[in-house]
Amino acid sequence: MSLLVVGSVALDSVETPFGKAEEVIGGSANYFSASASHQVPVQMVGVVGSDYPVEKLEPLAARGVDLSGLERAEGESFRWRGRYRHDLNSAETLETRLGVFSHFRPKLPEGFRDAEFVFLANIDPRLQLDVLRQVRKPKLVACDTMNFWIESRRANLLELLGQVDLITLNDGEARQLTEQANLVQAARWILARGPRTVLIKKGEHGAFMFTRDSVFFAPAYPLESVFDPTGAGDSFAGGFMGWLARTRDLTDANLRRAVVLGSAMGSFVVEGFSITRLLEVSRADIERRVADFHRLVSFDQALDA
Amino acid sequence: MSLLVVGSVALDSVETPFGKAEEVIGGSANYFSASASHQVPVQMVGVVGSDYPVEKLEPLAARGVDLSGLERAEGESFRWRGRYRHDLNSAETLETRLGVFSHFRPKLPEGFRDAEFVFLANIDPRLQLDVLRQVRKPKLVACDTMNFWIESRRANLLELLGQVDLITLNDGEARQLTEQANLVQAARWILARGPRTVLIKKGEHGAFMFTRDSVFFAPAYPLESVFDPTGAGDSFAGGFMGWLARTRDLTDANLRRAVVLGSAMGSFVVEGFSITRLLEVSRADIERRVADFHRLVSFDQALDA
Repeated sequence: MSLLVVGSVALDSVETPFGKAEEVIGGSANYFSASASHQVPVQMVGVVGSDYPVEKLEPLAARGVDLSGLERAEGESFRWRGRYRHDLNSAETLETRLGVFSHFRPKLPEGFRDAEFVFLANIDPRLQLDVLRQVRKPKLVACDTMNFWIESRRANLLELLGQVDLITLNDGEARQLTEQANLVQAARWILARGPRTVLIKKGEHGAFMFTRDSVFFAPAYPLESVFDPTGAGDSFAGGFMGWLARTRDLTDANLRRAVVLGSAMGSFVVEGFSITRLLEVSRADIERRVADFHRLVSFDQALDA
Repeated sequence: MSLLVVGSVALDSVETPFGKAEEVIGGSANYFSASASHQVPVQMVGVVGSDYPVEKLEPLAARGVDLSGLERAEGESFRWRGRYRHDLNSAETLETRLGVFSHFRPKLPEGFRDAEFVFLANIDPRLQLDVLRQVRKPKLVACDTMNFWIESRRANLLELLGQVDLITLNDGEARQLTEQANLVQAARWILARGPRTVLIKKGEHGAFMFTRDSVFFAPAYPLESVFDPTGAGDSFAGGFMGWLARTRDLTDANLRRAVVLGSAMGSFVVEGFSITRLLEVSRADIERRVADFHRLVSFDQALDA
């Protein structure tokens, strides 16, 4: 039940209407790992600069995240500075300093090459392809991407699509990639190019899972206070992949459960800055949130009045 | 199980990326009635000008819509001309000619004053209040509203809130009315001012139902082709209120079923121009769509891996 993630390990500075955080633990690999570690041990591959406060990753290590694939390079760590306005819907990037991340070449420790579940977080598709050449016989490979790669590395991204089982992307990215305004058509376009499963994330509007035979939808949980939306997508992916790695069950019924578990983790992470809430929540909290999701959408379909 | 609707009866001219319709049956009362008539007979109150092609409402009459409350006034009928761009998310209004609708004073025929279920579609809140003075002992009163009234008739709208059981409004309107960016807080604000139930419509992103004790969410059905979004909200309300009027059951479980039935009707109406699809669909089509909704959100919450 080994789960590998390759992605960014960053220092985030975030401002929301509710507060500020300076140089806190961020990046896709951190959010993913913190979320997935509630289900299974995680193998993380990423890079940090010599200035990274690696001791702050100790809570992750304590939760079973194997950091032996975290390269330490000479130079500055990846830093992101962003701001959310009142509606919390989209981050305004104030500054991105890639630092050592711009020369990142993922190298999997020998022990990681047998990973059964692989999440290629949002990095250059050429690197995502390179990771795939290093893993031996994964049971399920999923990738994420973003507008920048869709624009600048389209050919590589299409090549990658042919080699993954699942892709997660947000609605805007799905439309951009496929040039289809309609999400059902966008999903079909992607399904025709390789992945058996397409997860389209709509932020506060929930997430769709499309396969060739079925569509599933999970809303975002209606929280009374969203504190900081950063990392919601990667925490979603972490819950989703963590559940699959734990259960090793790829039936439609279990994929649906994984989507809800991912949504639950996404709903926790936004309740605080950085990965704080992901480290705090208990198994009971998660089970309670999943039950809340169930109540949120449950109805009796019998229409015999 | 009498159901009364008071609203606009219009002629719409609509342009979408998929086609054009000129001077077709439109207005909230028409969409609501066509949708609700699948469940119960409907009493419609509205006004048309001397130029209205009333013969085009015959299919509604044939379906049990009582048009005896449809006033015919000297002058021009209410006309709306709009356009939807590629993403179909929001209508661009090209022209609104209120005509006789600007002098509309709803007068309920004597036989309508005993209506048990009342839907006050989106009209001036002073007229909505006036309708409430004419009904005797309704079992459930629901109202809709819009940005224009929230801005220009706020005091009247707040007075109305104290007299209705339920309000439907879209997410933008809920935020505008309550000055709360968060929808849970917006719903709570409204619930504190009278209604026991708040339905927040998010268009293609589904609808929330908030009561004091529970939250329910129904997605919009992921259609492969949305033809014309006009009337989706009123068709939703028609399905919702029609189901409640038919079952006379106001339990949470039945309100949930009503939301899904409303969503189903909303998903049909956008498949064609005007009320065409609402007149075409059969009971079996509706039941099938409700079952599709059930499959769309169903998952087994047991997390014992």
